[in-house]
Amino acid sequence: MSKKTKVNAAILIIGNEILSGRTQDTNTSTLATWLNSIGVKVNEVRVIPDVEKTIIDTLNILRKENNYVFTTGGIGPTHDDITAESVAKAFSLKYEVHKEGYKILEAYYKPGEFNEGRQKMIWMPENAELILNPTSGAPGFSVENVFCLPGVPSILKSMLGGLKNKIVGGEPILSHSISLRTVESEIATAITEIQNRNTNVEIGSYPFFHAGKLGVSIVLRSEDQSKIDECNSQILKYINEKKIEVVDR
Amino acid sequence: MSKKTKVNAAILIIGNEILSGRTQDTNTSTLATWLNSIGVKVNEVRVIPDVEKTIIDTLNILRKENNYVFTTGGIGPTHDDITAESVAKAFSLKYEVHKEGYKILEAYYKPGEFNEGRQKMIWMPENAELILNPTSGAPGFSVENVFCLPGVPSILKSMLGGLKNKIVGGEPILSHSISLRTVESEIATAITEIQNRNTNVEIGSYPFFHAGKLGVSIVLRSEDQSKIDECNSQILKYINEKKIEVVDR
Repeated sequence: MSKKTKVNAAILIIGNEILSGRTQDTNTSTLATWLNSIGVKVNEVRVIPDVEKTIIDTLNILRKENNYVFTTGGIGPTHDDITAESVAKAFSLKYEVHKEGYKILEAYYKPGEFNEGRQKMIWMPENAELILNPTSGAPGFSVENVFCLPGVPSILKSMLGGLKNKIVGGEPILSHSISLRTVESEIATAITEIQNRNTNVEIGSYPFFHAGKLGVSIVLRSEDQSKIDECNSQILKYINEKKIEVVDR
Repeated sequence: MSKKTKVNAAILIIGNEILSGRTQDTNTSTLATWLNSIGVKVNEVRVIPDVEKTIIDTLNILRKENNYVFTTGGIGPTHDDITAESVAKAFSLKYEVHKEGYKILEAYYKPGEFNEGRQKMIWMPENAELILNPTSGAPGFSVENVFCLPGVPSILKSMLGGLKNKIVGGEPILSHSISLRTVESEIATAITEIQNRNTNVEIGSYPFFHAGKLGVSIVLRSEDQSKIDECNSQILKYINEKKIEVVDR
C-alpha cells in the first residue's frame, strides 16, 4: 500500500458495561489517538452489547467498509467473553485452541494454574495471528483486517506497540490547535469564511470551560503541514485584528 | 405505553473531535446512566464525523430501530455545527428559524449581542420541540423520537432534567455489584454455571486494578429485584465456600 493512500478504520467497543453507563470507555480515545499518529483515520466507532448475532452482523459490515477494524472487550475467560467465537463465526472459521497461544499461557502461569477458565482465552478463530500481551499474558489476535484487543485499558495500551508493524497507515494526519479567550458565536462568521478559503484543512471549533473561564479551541487538521500553516496565519491575522487573546489550554 | 414494555434507545455522538482522539467522550456514560435509571436500555452507540450524509443515513437507521435516539454535538454556532440541518433533511422537513427559540435567545443575550453566529443556533427543523438549556441559553430540540443535545458535557447534563417528562421508560433496569479479590479465571466456571441457572439475570464480569491490586466486579442486572437477590445469594454461597474475599470498589 502506498504511503499516499488514505487509510481508515472503525473501532468496535463490545460490552454491556459501556452501554449501561457503568464503565466509562477510554479505549476509543487511546486507539483513535494512536491510529491518527500512524496515518489511519477513524471513520466510525460503535458500541454494542455482548450479543453474538449483533457482534457478527456489525463486524461483517465494518470489516468491508474499512481498511481495519479494532475490537475491544470480550476476550477474557468468563461466560460473557464471546468476541473470539463471534469473530470465528463472522469469518466462517473454526473456533479452536490456538497452539502457539497455548504454549505462551502454559509458560506464563505457574504449574497447575493454567486452568479451564484461562484455557478459554486461547480459543480463537483458526489461523488467527496473535497480538502479544506484555502485561497479563493472554494474547489478542487478528483475522484478516480485524484486530481483537482486550477491554481493560492498561492492557490494551501495552499491546499497541506490538501491533504497529501490522498496520500500514497513510500520511499522518497533522493537527494544530489555537485556544482563544472568546466564545464561538463571536468568531463563527470569520472562521466559516476561513474554512471556505481552505478546503484542504478541516477546521474544528470546540468551546471549553477551564479554570472558570470560557474559551474556544480551534483545531486545524490536514495531511499537509503547509496548508495548516497557511490557514493558521489567516486565523492569527484575524484574531490580531480583533484583539482576541490567545490562551493556553 | 405500558410500564412493562421494553424501551430502548441509541446514542449518536456527532463529532470529528471524538474520532480523532482529541476529546474523550463522556456523554455516552452520562446519557446511558440516566436512561437506565428511567427504564430505557441503550442498545447501541455510534460515533460519526461531522459529515452531512453520514449523519442523515445513520439517523435514519437508528430512529427506525430504536424507541428513542439521542444525538450529542453539532448544534452550536460554527460552520462545523451541522446537526440541526442534517436532522431536518433526515426527516424531509424545512430548516428554519424557530420562533420560540428566537424569543428565548433574544431575551437571554444583552441588546446587540444576539449576532449572526448566535442566531444560527435557533435554526431548526420545522415544528421542532425545544429542549431548554438552563446553562447557556441555546436550546436543544426534538423531532419525533430524536432528541438533539449539545456536545459540551456540563451543558448536556443540565438539560436532562427538562427532558425527563418527554421520555417514557419501561421498568427500570436494576443492578447489583459484588467486588471480589480474585481473578476472572478462578471464578469463570462457577459464574458460568450460575448464569445458566439464572437466565433472567444478566451477569457481567469485569476485572479491575485498584490501589495496585487485582479484583473482579460481578454485576447483576435485571428488571426483577427478586431474581437479582436469588442470583446474588447463589454467588455469595459460592464465594463463601471458596473463601474469596469481598472488597469495596
